[in-house]
Amino acid sequence: MESSSTFPFVTSPPLPADWEQLYQNRSILVTGGLGFIGSNLSLRLVELGARVTIVDSLIPDYGGNPWNVEKIKDRININIADVRDPHSIARLVQGQDIIFNLAGQVSHIDSMRDPFTDLEINCRSQLSILEACRNNNSNVKIIYAGTRQQYGKPQYLPVDEKHLVLPTDVNGINKTAGETYHILYNNVHGIRATSLRMTNTYGPRLLLKHNRQGFISVFLRTAIEKGEIKIFGTGEQLRDLNYVDDATDAFLRVGVAEWTNGEVYNLGGDEILSVAAIAQKIIKTAGAGRLSIVPFPEETRRIDIGSYYGSYQKLREAVGWRPLIDADEGFQRTVDYYRENISHYVED
Amino acid sequence: MESSSTFPFVTSPPLPADWEQLYQNRSILVTGGLGFIGSNLSLRLVELGARVTIVDSLIPDYGGNPWNVEKIKDRININIADVRDPHSIARLVQGQDIIFNLAGQVSHIDSMRDPFTDLEINCRSQLSILEACRNNNSNVKIIYAGTRQQYGKPQYLPVDEKHLVLPTDVNGINKTAGETYHILYNNVHGIRATSLRMTNTYGPRLLLKHNRQGFISVFLRTAIEKGEIKIFGTGEQLRDLNYVDDATDAFLRVGVAEWTNGEVYNLGGDEILSVAAIAQKIIKTAGAGRLSIVPFPEETRRIDIGSYYGSYQKLREAVGWRPLIDADEGFQRTVDYYRENISHYVED
Repeated sequence: MESSSTFPFVTSPPLPADWEQLYQNRSILVTGGLGFIGSNLSLRLVELGARVTIVDSLIPDYGGNPWNVEKIKDRININIADVRDPHSIARLVQGQDIIFNLAGQVSHIDSMRDPFTDLEINCRSQLSILEACRNNNSNVKIIYAGTRQQYGKPQYLPVDEKHLVLPTDVNGINKTAGETYHILYNNVHGIRATSLRMTNTYGPRLLLKHNRQGFISVFLRTAIEKGEIKIFGTGEQLRDLNYVDDATDAFLRVGVAEWTNGEVYNLGGDEILSVAAIAQKIIKTAGAGRLSIVPFPEETRRIDIGSYYGSYQKLREAVGWRPLIDADEGFQRTVDYYRENISHYVED
Repeated sequence: MESSSTFPFVTSPPLPADWEQLYQNRSILVTGGLGFIGSNLSLRLVELGARVTIVDSLIPDYGGNPWNVEKIKDRININIADVRDPHSIARLVQGQDIIFNLAGQVSHIDSMRDPFTDLEINCRSQLSILEACRNNNSNVKIIYAGTRQQYGKPQYLPVDEKHLVLPTDVNGINKTAGETYHILYNNVHGIRATSLRMTNTYGPRLLLKHNRQGFISVFLRTAIEKGEIKIFGTGEQLRDLNYVDDATDAFLRVGVAEWTNGEVYNLGGDEILSVAAIAQKIIKTAGAGRLSIVPFPEETRRIDIGSYYGSYQKLREAVGWRPLIDADEGFQRTVDYYRENISHYVED
């Protein structure tokens, strides 16, 4: 049993200019690695020369898609397993330097319809992963994928990390428990852990095949298919966005920085856009689609949080992160990707 | 299936002088009703003329003790069942006007040793209870037993409800998820719910038979048995206390008050005492026992929160609650109770 990582974590700020080189030849586990963010992160890690193992359950509807890693499939180890299974997780964490822990049920609507499955995946399996590390690889570092949904309806804007956590759906509650387990294991058991609370993230490899994983996914597919984008309410709710390469850059930065252990950071975007403006950008980029405003479906209205945008100042100060790809560029790259690969994202 | 409560909830503040009479002939379910607080609450409810059903799993070591309700056993319905069992819970919630939801795993140390059991009881079973109400009795009101442990290590004192929730143990994380489910079901599904975050509560019927349910329990038993009370650290950490009758009074008050729905309230005490001072009071009251200061055991030190006391101003303003029994009186009543009943609390 290999329990001591020799990963050369950077022990004091700032990150050196060549910090990305630290990933070369290192063993990295990406849970949920066939999903949207996990696959983009794995692509970057392979470019950096890391030895990547992906664990993914490929549960239908959850975002895992083997096509996401088509370009690197011969250079990574793909292990199909459910993070709820403590036996496979106990084996998989061994020998890893860093775990990017992205496996999760991410649909807010699904969490309200089936709260127990969300609990199993977003609470219980996180404990399984952390217990596996405690017992089998206590020198590892884990970076957890949190979400702005944990804050619930903002009490002030921009939301910083001092904002109360008052989730408006079961998914937000369980993601919060999962995050807090990580911070607890960092503080009590010495398992290095950092959480990044992501905002609306978009880009190539986002799940498009159903409409329960966020409005950008729905808007993109509708525009590409020349349909009508239906906006709930007034379309005036504000959001910030991150292009996926910016999000994965944040994960890679905190992964090597010792002073981020035990901390929680917001991601966030510089452009604050209304939902209607985001739809219009997507329509313009795709050169297709049209817009209509419709009343909120009851099921969605009840967990809606109004306007949200976050402050990423704490993360910027910690590791020098800021988003580099603006919405025009990001949506162009996204539309270009789906033009070429659409068949792998709309069929079952 | 009986789904509509006719309970005459008070719709606007303040509570009328005779609010306790509202419980007469009403159907009340107390989960964890054979435990410390649940049994004291049930005793009061029987005095008020309520029809009380207790559900308790009697899991060894968890605080349930049939002797706690010896005096009222012929006037209540005792149903042995585990709140993790969705089938019995679905049946038991039917026809109830109010549910006092006190079932839980309460040991912080046990939650660190066996986080999965704590998760099952404090997260999963809470979802079971709420789903049972949503499907079978959506007019019920639920009062949830939260804990000051949810706040973790205080960032300021006294701690009010605006303080960040940053638990330092698995129990605190799971109790927080359980609480937030209640608030969510109130806001989204219209199941009336209020949470009371209790502080150190003591009094007759506190579990004494093992040392993992709080320091007051340990101090009481040690003094009664003429032993040496070991205080960890310096004994200077501050705490506030509630005598159990004051705590149950808070539950009864919010139970009838419509304007508390969806809200979270701290309980708290007027006397802020050091742990050493509490030990000395207990020794003086018992007329037995002695004090020693010892280093923190590692397992306890890692989840210790330092000094804590809370503000109960919000609850006072909402329902006129304040604690009435001071520590001298409370410990006297407690010691008197155990002098008469000790055999039922120290044997298995």
